[in-house]
Amino acid sequence: MHYYAQPVARLVEELMKLPSIGPKTAQRLAFFILHQTHEEAKSLAEAIIEAKEKIKYCSICSNLTEMDLCDICRDQSRDQTIICVVEEPKDVIAMERTRQFNGLYHVLQGAISPMDGVGPEDLRIKELLERINDGRIEEVILATDPTIEGEATAMYLSQLIKPLNIKATRIASGLPVGGDLEYADEVTLSRALEGRREL
Amino acid sequence: MHYYAQPVARLVEELMKLPSIGPKTAQRLAFFILHQTHEEAKSLAEAIIEAKEKIKYCSICSNLTEMDLCDICRDQSRDQTIICVVEEPKDVIAMERTRQFNGLYHVLQGAISPMDGVGPEDLRIKELLERINDGRIEEVILATDPTIEGEATAMYLSQLIKPLNIKATRIASGLPVGGDLEYADEVTLSRALEGRREL
Repeated sequence: MHYYAQPVARLVEELMKLPSIGPKTAQRLAFFILHQTHEEAKSLAEAIIEAKEKIKYCSICSNLTEMDLCDICRDQSRDQTIICVVEEPKDVIAMERTRQFNGLYHVLQGAISPMDGVGPEDLRIKELLERINDGRIEEVILATDPTIEGEATAMYLSQLIKPLNIKATRIASGLPVGGDLEYADEVTLSRALEGRREL
Repeated sequence: MHYYAQPVARLVEELMKLPSIGPKTAQRLAFFILHQTHEEAKSLAEAIIEAKEKIKYCSICSNLTEMDLCDICRDQSRDQTIICVVEEPKDVIAMERTRQFNGLYHVLQGAISPMDGVGPEDLRIKELLERINDGRIEEVILATDPTIEGEATAMYLSQLIKPLNIKATRIASGLPVGGDLEYADEVTLSRALEGRREL
């Protein structure tokens, strides 16, 4: 890296820390930034600082927000009887994009993963149970990822929720829309078969 | 984008301005940055600002540098009789990586491209001719890109340089090492044939 002037080398190095940014992409981004105006580069740098400084976790659902409560928790027009449990804030955005869900969310901030040393006590499960216990919640949709960790987390939560006489549901696994039966892996196809519905 | 808290939306938007960063990648990068420590995020932001503020163009060769002269122009151990002309500072890095060239560089800051409104007067051609005229230069290697614009620029420069009784050479076009004859386009293959050498 001694080919670069030092500030360029530093920028390339910093950019390489980002996920899926290798040396070539980092170099391309760095030269792009050097070609930008001062205002444009400053705007990017400020956006990074501002996001880090202003963003915190919603004190109810642990979603990202710049206030104490997130937009969704503040929105009284949303269905207050149903909570969708997801792993990460980005999963909230994915769910919101469907425009099919008008209830509340709860972000666990991860999934149970003994391999990574993440146990139930590391997730926002206590907070979820407190919310459920307030008497208004009728259904909890477990929308953790369909991975081993996500499935384990959903199973674990369902065992905590069911005794409270609250409906615990799990989002369906199956073939993605536009997918191809021929190329589906056998686990997904088995799930699609298991979850078949009468037409 | 109204799904994001405002500072996250701004960060995603800023990241999307970077080349080859689409909405999905921008979101992934933004969430990665939000997961970093304050120090890490600040370090990235500072690197951007620092690079923009400190980096300027070498007053001899127009390469990027944080001083008045770049490392290469300051290095008296390099061959002062040969100049390699490239389009962009990143081409200097590509050439240096070969470790095959020990002369000086001249960065044109682009190539002649009438389509984009870039004429010879927009490039550092005047500065190149001044350098050549100082009497020490014996050879100018034209290492602009093997594109229409790069070729045109090389032709244009060679016509300016030859009357000065200085050798003007062009880097070879041909098959990339490890490439496959079968898949080479006909222009590249014609060039490879034209440029054949006796063994």
